[in-house]
Amino acid sequence: MASYQPSNQSTINMTQLYLVSAGPGDAHLITPKSASAINAASDIVAYGLYIDLLGDMGRGKTHHELPLGEEIGRARLALNLAASGKVTALVSSGDIGIYAMATVVFELLDNQLAGKEDNPEWLDIDIQVIPGISAMQANSSSVGALLGHDFCTVSLSDLLTPWETIIKRVHSAGSGDFVVSFYNPVSIKRNWQLNTARDILLEYRPGSTPVVLGRNLTREDHKISIIRLDQLDAKDVDMFTCVSVGNSESKHIVNGDKHWVYTPRGYSKKL
Amino acid sequence: MASYQPSNQSTINMTQLYLVSAGPGDAHLITPKSASAINAASDIVAYGLYIDLLGDMGRGKTHHELPLGEEIGRARLALNLAASGKVTALVSSGDIGIYAMATVVFELLDNQLAGKEDNPEWLDIDIQVIPGISAMQANSSSVGALLGHDFCTVSLSDLLTPWETIIKRVHSAGSGDFVVSFYNPVSIKRNWQLNTARDILLEYRPGSTPVVLGRNLTREDHKISIIRLDQLDAKDVDMFTCVSVGNSESKHIVNGDKHWVYTPRGYSKKL
Repeated sequence: MASYQPSNQSTINMTQLYLVSAGPGDAHLITPKSASAINAASDIVAYGLYIDLLGDMGRGKTHHELPLGEEIGRARLALNLAASGKVTALVSSGDIGIYAMATVVFELLDNQLAGKEDNPEWLDIDIQVIPGISAMQANSSSVGALLGHDFCTVSLSDLLTPWETIIKRVHSAGSGDFVVSFYNPVSIKRNWQLNTARDILLEYRPGSTPVVLGRNLTREDHKISIIRLDQLDAKDVDMFTCVSVGNSESKHIVNGDKHWVYTPRGYSKKL
Repeated sequence: MASYQPSNQSTINMTQLYLVSAGPGDAHLITPKSASAINAASDIVAYGLYIDLLGDMGRGKTHHELPLGEEIGRARLALNLAASGKVTALVSSGDIGIYAMATVVFELLDNQLAGKEDNPEWLDIDIQVIPGISAMQANSSSVGALLGHDFCTVSLSDLLTPWETIIKRVHSAGSGDFVVSFYNPVSIKRNWQLNTARDILLEYRPGSTPVVLGRNLTREDHKISIIRLDQLDAKDVDMFTCVSVGNSESKHIVNGDKHWVYTPRGYSKKL
C-alpha cells in the first residue's frame, strides 16, 4: 500500500507554490490557512475578479492577471514563477480543487513527468493545496441544508467534456436520486444545456422538487431564489449562479417570511 | 418565483442559533465566520471530540456534550437553548450541512410547522448556517486535486437509509463515472458494506483506479494512503477515514518521493 504523509516537511531549498481557495465571496469565509499562504506569497496569480475577493490580503503583492479562459496559461505562469524562486499563490474562488485551477497544475506536472513538457524545474516545486468553501456549500447553507444527504456535482460545460458524457451523468444523478449541483450552468455562448438537464431530471423526480438558484453567493449583492424543478429555466440563470436541485425527499418549508430547504438524512423516518 | 434574501436582517428580539462548521480538524481551516459565531455564543452544543477541535475558541462558554448517536437530542437541546434566549452554537466537524447536524435541526423545525412537535418558541429563532470544509475536500487537497471533475458522495450508513437505496446510488455513481467519496464507510457494527460498494464500482472502472484513504485528515496524526480500487478493503478503514475513489480518468502520479492524485478537467485533452 502506497502511504503518503502530506506534511509540511518542505526541503529548505524548495521553491513554493500555494494553490489557494478564496471561497465563494465573503472574506469571512476565507480560512486562516488560505490567508497565511497569500500572506507568505510575493506573487499572486489569479483572474482579476478573484484578486478583488482578497481585499486587503492582496496588498503589496505582485499581481499577475490573466483573463478567464486562459487557465492553462495561468497554471503555467504560476509554475514558472514558483520555479524562479518566487513564493507564489495561485488563487481560485470557491475550492481551488473543485472545477478550478488545481487540477490544471497537476495536468501540467503530469505532462512534464511524461516528457511532454520541457520544464524540469517544475519538479522541484513544493506544492501545497488549500481547500475552501465551494459554491454548492454556500448555496446549501444559505437556505438551510440542501446537501444534507448524498449529492453530486455536474459541470454543464462541454468545452472539455463531451456532451454525451454530461448527459449520461445527469441520467445517473437522476437514477441515483442524488441532490445535484450544476456548475457552469450557462455561459454567453451556451444556454440550452441547463434546460435539457432539467428535463432529464424530471424523468426521475417530481416537478415540485425544490431548486435553489444562488447568484453572487455570500456577497453583498447576492440573490437567492427557491423555485420548483419544473420552473427552472436557463433564462433565469447566468454564469454567476449556482443551481442546486434537491432529491425526491428534499423539502421547501416556510416559517413566516423565512424560507428553508433541507434534505432529510435518510429515507426511513425515525424522528 | 419565490425569492429569498438570506441576509443578516435579524429582528432585534429574535433568539439566535448558529449552525457552525468546524472543518476537518486543523484549526486554521475554521473560517473567521465560524469563529465569530462561536465567539458570539454563550452556549455550545457538540459531541465532545468536536469541542476539542475548537481549542481556545471554546473557552468561557457553557458546553453541552451529548454522545455520538444522540443527534436528535443534540438538535433539540440547541433549539431549546436558543429559544430560552441563549445565543447558541451547534457545532459539527466538517461542513455542518453535509451529513451532519444542520438537516436534523430543519427536520425538527419542519415537524413543528407540521404540528408534530409542541415547541412553538422554536419558530422565533433566527437560524444561521455557516458552511465549512468537508472531509472529501481535505482528502482531495491533501493529495492534489482528486475532486477536479464531477463527483458525488455516498454515505454507507444504513441506519436511516435502506441498503437497497445505497446500492442503487453506488451503481449510479459507477454508471455516471463520478469521483466517489464514501462517508461513514464503516462503523464498529458495520464493516461489510464498503467491500460491496468497491465490488460494484469495479463493474464500471478499472482495478487500477486510485483510491485515497484519509484518516484524521489535517490533524497532527493524519495518515493518507493512496491505493488501487482493487486493493480497497474495509479492514484498512475505520470510522475516522474518508474514502475517495477516483473516476476512470483519475491519475496517481509520482514525482520523486511525492505522490499526487488528480482528476483531469475533461475527457478531451486540449493541453
